[in-house]
Amino acid sequence: MNHYDVIVIGCGAAGYNTAIRAGQLGFSVACVERASNVGGAGIRTGCIPSRLLLHTSEIYQLASKGKNTSLGIDGAPTLNLVQMMAYKAATVKKMSKSIHTLLRKQGVTLIYGNALLAAAGQVVVKKAGGVQQTLYGTALVIATGSEPVPLPFAAFDHTRILDSADALSLDRLPQHLAIVGAGAVGVELGSIWRRLGSRVTLIERRDRICHWLDRDVAVALERSLKLQGIDVRLLSDVIGLDKHSNGVSIRLHTTESNEITTLDAEMVLVAIGRRPSTADLNLASVGLQADPEGVLPPHGSISGPGIWVIGDAAAGPMLMSKAEEEAIACAERIAGLPGFVNYASIPYVLYTNPEVAMIGKTEDELGATQAAYRVGYCPLSANARAAICNTSEGFVKLLIDSHTNLIAGAHLIGPGAADLISQVAIAMEASMLCEDFARICHPYPAWSEALRQAAMAAGGWMMHA
Amino acid sequence: MNHYDVIVIGCGAAGYNTAIRAGQLGFSVACVERASNVGGAGIRTGCIPSRLLLHTSEIYQLASKGKNTSLGIDGAPTLNLVQMMAYKAATVKKMSKSIHTLLRKQGVTLIYGNALLAAAGQVVVKKAGGVQQTLYGTALVIATGSEPVPLPFAAFDHTRILDSADALSLDRLPQHLAIVGAGAVGVELGSIWRRLGSRVTLIERRDRICHWLDRDVAVALERSLKLQGIDVRLLSDVIGLDKHSNGVSIRLHTTESNEITTLDAEMVLVAIGRRPSTADLNLASVGLQADPEGVLPPHGSISGPGIWVIGDAAAGPMLMSKAEEEAIACAERIAGLPGFVNYASIPYVLYTNPEVAMIGKTEDELGATQAAYRVGYCPLSANARAAICNTSEGFVKLLIDSHTNLIAGAHLIGPGAADLISQVAIAMEASMLCEDFARICHPYPAWSEALRQAAMAAGGWMMHA
Repeated sequence: MNHYDVIVIGCGAAGYNTAIRAGQLGFSVACVERASNVGGAGIRTGCIPSRLLLHTSEIYQLASKGKNTSLGIDGAPTLNLVQMMAYKAATVKKMSKSIHTLLRKQGVTLIYGNALLAAAGQVVVKKAGGVQQTLYGTALVIATGSEPVPLPFAAFDHTRILDSADALSLDRLPQHLAIVGAGAVGVELGSIWRRLGSRVTLIERRDRICHWLDRDVAVALERSLKLQGIDVRLLSDVIGLDKHSNGVSIRLHTTESNEITTLDAEMVLVAIGRRPSTADLNLASVGLQADPEGVLPPHGSISGPGIWVIGDAAAGPMLMSKAEEEAIACAERIAGLPGFVNYASIPYVLYTNPEVAMIGKTEDELGATQAAYRVGYCPLSANARAAICNTSEGFVKLLIDSHTNLIAGAHLIGPGAADLISQVAIAMEASMLCEDFARICHPYPAWSEALRQAAMAAGGWMMHA
Repeated sequence: MNHYDVIVIGCGAAGYNTAIRAGQLGFSVACVERASNVGGAGIRTGCIPSRLLLHTSEIYQLASKGKNTSLGIDGAPTLNLVQMMAYKAATVKKMSKSIHTLLRKQGVTLIYGNALLAAAGQVVVKKAGGVQQTLYGTALVIATGSEPVPLPFAAFDHTRILDSADALSLDRLPQHLAIVGAGAVGVELGSIWRRLGSRVTLIERRDRICHWLDRDVAVALERSLKLQGIDVRLLSDVIGLDKHSNGVSIRLHTTESNEITTLDAEMVLVAIGRRPSTADLNLASVGLQADPEGVLPPHGSISGPGIWVIGDAAAGPMLMSKAEEEAIACAERIAGLPGFVNYASIPYVLYTNPEVAMIGKTEDELGATQAAYRVGYCPLSANARAAICNTSEGFVKLLIDSHTNLIAGAHLIGPGAADLISQVAIAMEASMLCEDFARICHPYPAWSEALRQAAMAAGGWMMHA
């Protein structure tokens, strides 16, 4: 059978979620995957390996010498990096397998090969061994994901000049890892290798790390990363990379002082961004055109010939959660159901330590719109759970629209932020007033009490600070 | 000055929160405390020390030999229990101090001594050294907390027969700790000592542990505690305790088999419940009467002569969060503002491993009312964060009212449950439909995705299992 209701190109978060939801809705679905297994960058080489090594490196650090002496616990763990990487590989394999199971459960046909758009409703799959198969679909979903962008003057060699996938697969500790780009990948992967024992230098051309974060959070995270021993070089452009036998010499142009300096590292991770993997799709055959960076129009903006673009391939933040939302909405719209993505309530998370999570607007963004807003700020020093853990850093910052009393943004830095942010997502989706959010009864002691206290603070009655 | 707008008797969670909120609302407030410091049982001898030792013992266990070999981390930590207890004492002291600061900030007068009700609006404080002070208040708030109940045939001797405060202050590891009562105190303190290396036996007269939990959760928790090496004896009544030089012999009547057996332990923790500390208040002078267990009527049910009862002294669950809610409502009602406690959306938590949290009705409770409901169940085996942590146990169970599509109850067992439950609290307070709860976008990977998947399951479209 070569005809399907829905053909999904790419089996990462965008693709497999579309396939599953479309299967649930009764469609016959084919999913084409060019890699050797399903899961996409998110599960195979990006988000999941990163989160996993952040988890294991945190356990290693948590158990490290002197860390818990004040708690009455002493010890010095040993690290077996090869075993840690084997654990990572086994977990990724297990997760890919469970996606297989989910697809099978919905009767999705999985086809391995490179998909080429041939015409409206027609996809040619080039398989291993030169075999070609033509598929016919009523709806075509482009979910091809994204790939790391190299520096213009230095290709990835995967040994000295690494992409994120390389930096998540090292089998020995780099003595000094330099990271170009202090975005999500930079701070997360830098944290991993720093915790495991490497010297880490983060190089960022802007005046702060993770520029999209609320400024207070970015400053707090930078301070914390520095305290952990990560060297942070802001306002620094990398203008050249010279490989040599022991590593790489990085030529840096420091914009403030207009100086050119050289930094030596064993390896360089280039983490300056990702671009959609849309180049080899033959987009013109279905009347589509990507912009010069390969980006296709946002999800939902293309109407007509049964073509859908979702996930990293479509404009918008490159997040697995965004991809999943678009996947669900896409499948439901193909079925004629209402399906939409509320981009205003998609949380962003950094799995650093302290963890960072945000949703909605930053204070700079609100300021730029001349919006009237109040800030509800609760430092974790006012939180009982933080006292127990002797955590002095971190805070919750709520931004409340003064006219509506609704939450316009939330910015968290501290333990558990990635799960706490969903509380704000729920409150925002429910259009809950700040006053009502301040009335939620939380367990005691819990991190989430800080959200309540911040809401109280926005109302002028914070009780615990 | 001996006249105050509000006199609060007791400076635990109920008392200090009332004093702070009343101070914020512009009242002159006195707070009388009979112990040597503020914070109440919750901060000084109960909830906080327990949560703290659960935290430290978890770190100890997390670092323990063989635990992380598969992650590539090895080591064997050493335990210094005296230091761990010193850390606990220092943290409690710090938290008491911060309550002092909060009270001072609101201009609350703190008076140490035993308070006796003398008449409506009149309290006599018996201080150290025989000094007496009479206070006059427009509103009197009874927030005297609670104390552990002993077995009828065996008083606490604080050496062999312990209350919860004793069991949170041991400076050496008991070889075998028997615990009478498998409620919150039993399972939490049992977990602490088991993790630190003691043999632990939990004795429970009912047919299951933590009887108020949803049955599925109670069963899962019991299985997990047993896997951790805790011996659980259900349907077992303690009918005698015989102290001897090496410990205590416990006579057990097993109701199912009608057998009497003897269990030897080094110490016995009696954790069969708590009762309000209301005996010495001279309640009759203000026209109040406690029931035979010392319980005063529920918060809000007493009207008239400016008397308020809150926290553990008032009927209802003995939770710090409940005490805090009643404190806020009480202060606001004294101020003539609306103030009420929604007892239906107060979460319950057990800080065991796996963590347990619930809100709303259990399945048994719904079944008993003949309510029509649907179950949304998501095992953590379907959660990406759980895959990363290699966590195979745990689940989210949502109970959805079939007529309204609202969440009637939520039962969580697994990492982070104490913070995740607040998501359901918010959804319940916002009267969010299950369908909308299933549409919340969570970060990936996050524990909270399991809540979404459970809501999808209740709607018949769980995508990840």
